[in-house]
Amino acid sequence: MLTNFTFDELEIGQTASYEKTLTEREIILFAAASGDTNPIHMDEEYANGTPFGGRIAHGIWTASLISAAIANVMPGPGSIYLGQTLKFSRPVKIGDTITIQLEVTEKNEKRKRVSIQCSGSNQDGKQIISGVAEVQAPTEKLSLDTPVLPSIDIADS
Amino acid sequence: MLTNFTFDELEIGQTASYEKTLTEREIILFAAASGDTNPIHMDEEYANGTPFGGRIAHGIWTASLISAAIANVMPGPGSIYLGQTLKFSRPVKIGDTITIQLEVTEKNEKRKRVSIQCSGSNQDGKQIISGVAEVQAPTEKLSLDTPVLPSIDIADS
Repeated sequence: MLTNFTFDELEIGQTASYEKTLTEREIILFAAASGDTNPIHMDEEYANGTPFGGRIAHGIWTASLISAAIANVMPGPGSIYLGQTLKFSRPVKIGDTITIQLEVTEKNEKRKRVSIQCSGSNQDGKQIISGVAEVQAPTEKLSLDTPVLPSIDIADS
Repeated sequence: MLTNFTFDELEIGQTASYEKTLTEREIILFAAASGDTNPIHMDEEYANGTPFGGRIAHGIWTASLISAAIANVMPGPGSIYLGQTLKFSRPVKIGDTITIQLEVTEKNEKRKRVSIQCSGSNQDGKQIISGVAEVQAPTEKLSLDTPVLPSIDIADS
């Protein structure tokens, strides 16, 4: 189930987290969804010769984990995403596990909006992304079944 | 082929664009890549009862089109994505065609960085996303084969 926090339930300092590991599968799905097939993400041989020394995740893939944390964890369903700042600090490589940390830093009572400090770090505790999200918080309590995705098959390349 | 613009080739006022149409396929692939299966994206019945009146794209999907435009068009391969601000103005629905417009607004000669104004509009000319990207521009001219994605099959749900 996906259960939200309404605007009234959210408190300054409230935190939430979300974790996901990058595999080749996420890179391919993200490339297909966005159309961004840049060889730094797709081509191991090319990527090995760059300063990154290997394939890296799309920066916006990491941002999508922030969005997932907001949409599904805090505030959760019924949130409307208004804006986001992003700073990309370090690359994310296949096998890295990214933990997104959210913290409510401001509440606008009149407009029912919250500011959320967002930070993502890898399994070594190094920050790879940070920024601030602006969210219209839900005013109605919701508890919804988590939709199940259809199965997705990626052909061997 | 993907051909880049080096820092020296980029001029203030230079523009580029990138276009993509949202289908259910992009929504499913993006949900799988990010883990964001919020029913506003996945569940037609639920989404019909919200103020959006139907399923909408993940906001960050639209941001991923900005990223694709930077990575593959201008400056193109060799760019390093440093930061991005995003304002989400309107929802994107299945069938909408989004055109991303990029314009170079600042060049930092010393650090070889550029600021790029980013704007995305739908087929009715309405702005749906805007922001500013900070990019480390490539200094070496590159012309690379566009990687080909493996085929991806989504099971009927």
